[in-house]
Amino acid sequence: MDRLPNIDDIKIAHNKIKSNIHKTPVLTSKSINIITQSNLFFKCENFQRAGAFKMRGASNAILSLKGEELKNGVATHSSGNHAGALALAAKTIGTKAYIAMPENAPEVKILAVKGYGGNVTFCKPTLEDREATLKKIVDRTNATFIHPYDDYRIITGQATCAKEIYEGIDNVDYLIAPVGGGGLLSGSILSSKYFSPYTKVIGAEPIGADDAFRSIRDNKIYPSVNPQTIADGLLTSLSSKTFNIIKDGVDRIITVKEETIKSAMYLIWERMKIIVEPSSATVLAVVIENPELFINKKVALILSGGNISPLFKGK
Amino acid sequence: MDRLPNIDDIKIAHNKIKSNIHKTPVLTSKSINIITQSNLFFKCENFQRAGAFKMRGASNAILSLKGEELKNGVATHSSGNHAGALALAAKTIGTKAYIAMPENAPEVKILAVKGYGGNVTFCKPTLEDREATLKKIVDRTNATFIHPYDDYRIITGQATCAKEIYEGIDNVDYLIAPVGGGGLLSGSILSSKYFSPYTKVIGAEPIGADDAFRSIRDNKIYPSVNPQTIADGLLTSLSSKTFNIIKDGVDRIITVKEETIKSAMYLIWERMKIIVEPSSATVLAVVIENPELFINKKVALILSGGNISPLFKGK
Repeated sequence: MDRLPNIDDIKIAHNKIKSNIHKTPVLTSKSINIITQSNLFFKCENFQRAGAFKMRGASNAILSLKGEELKNGVATHSSGNHAGALALAAKTIGTKAYIAMPENAPEVKILAVKGYGGNVTFCKPTLEDREATLKKIVDRTNATFIHPYDDYRIITGQATCAKEIYEGIDNVDYLIAPVGGGGLLSGSILSSKYFSPYTKVIGAEPIGADDAFRSIRDNKIYPSVNPQTIADGLLTSLSSKTFNIIKDGVDRIITVKEETIKSAMYLIWERMKIIVEPSSATVLAVVIENPELFINKKVALILSGGNISPLFKGK
Repeated sequence: MDRLPNIDDIKIAHNKIKSNIHKTPVLTSKSINIITQSNLFFKCENFQRAGAFKMRGASNAILSLKGEELKNGVATHSSGNHAGALALAAKTIGTKAYIAMPENAPEVKILAVKGYGGNVTFCKPTLEDREATLKKIVDRTNATFIHPYDDYRIITGQATCAKEIYEGIDNVDYLIAPVGGGGLLSGSILSSKYFSPYTKVIGAEPIGADDAFRSIRDNKIYPSVNPQTIADGLLTSLSSKTFNIIKDGVDRIITVKEETIKSAMYLIWERMKIIVEPSSATVLAVVIENPELFINKKVALILSGGNISPLFKGK
């Protein structure tokens, strides 16, 4: 697929992956609405299979492959959620998944990939080493490379998340999605354009990994160099495909402080009794840091994933 | 109300409290089913208002009071969830709540009570001091005492939880509820008798707080003396009302180890992405420690509450 996904592509993809994914719930929290003075709708991709929205894109990519392309398995590099999703999607259709994972990936995510039968090769946490390690894997196995986001099949899959939001809620003023490599944000932009053109789409990014913010501001892709954030899913840079979609369609990218990400995460844990990972909390952090923008507005927030291991501290 | 609640009492109570409580979801987890080789249905009272099933009983008790009994507020002693629920239920109808709380109650629960406008007086964590402190409060305020479980209005309210389970699921082999003071377990026994007589009801209790187990075994109420468990909601002793209902109707009480409670709690957090407190995890711990009993069975488990503050440990 080498053109921008259109409305039918997204509908077809949604239908194709339906039995592979959960239609995740949209939850609301009276007390968080009171705190933020806005009307928030949380799309819970933390309840998605493999614990993140990535299952949508990975499923669509794998189900779009021909037999020949599947026979030697699939391969990717990913710090976590795309890796887990690809491994699970591959397992579902009975093929292999080879994953280059940075050695500093969260343990819970490494265990998940292995639990789904994925074949993990560790690499250094740099884009260079991720790509070099992946190349070695592909050379050895002949597996089909599935990029975590620079791939229209992936972007189309991620777009089904916002599509589900708009199927359930009308007149959404803002949709906020986290931005790392930009797959989810790109898909959200496309689905908003097609299914809810009134909605403004905002990207949420940690201030310590603000390459997307700077890239859109200066109209050129900056690599993500030595990002510093607890949002381990948002360390990657935009790609050519995601940059172009985001540049054209995003209302704005808003950066948020680490301490706000952390307190937003605790707020979601405490008030909603659900587990989300730090990357997910960036979307609520955007609302908390910019109350004037969202006051009395209808805001959909994508809680992108729940792959984190909180600790119990006995009293 | 001074007789055993009958089927109509429970139906009337359910109707009465409907707008005060959430009809909480029943969730399933494919991966926990695979691990336990059983068919588990988790009734998520962690999503209940005030974060625990206690909102059912507290609402029913408060809505059963006459104007005169409400005028000076309500009072109770509780280490946490009954306190929060009573404070919220009191606030809802515009009366005051006075709570004697042991000084070692979890901070999250103390903050919740205060957040709902409850008036907290701290006491020593012994039944004696809880009751003495409460007496002082009642003497001073003339508030109406609502016992956390030795009260048929409370038991009837807690019974609505199992009623909702049976409205959604047929042919439940076992229902497992945690047992502290026995209000939830008693209500579950009554609703099972009336709405699903085929179902066997099991009480889940920490081995370090096994007074209910011993009480039923020896047919006399043992006080809970110096209980040692992370399940902070299960420290209390049975009362005369709960003892009699449990003695007559429980299939058995099963004690579980601390380490199983803890690992069951982590399993729920990790696989279901929801936050439950240790008391809730006892029910899954029962299944984990007794696989032979539940293999291939349809088992409903009441996740009693979610009032806990897990910690994030950055990698």
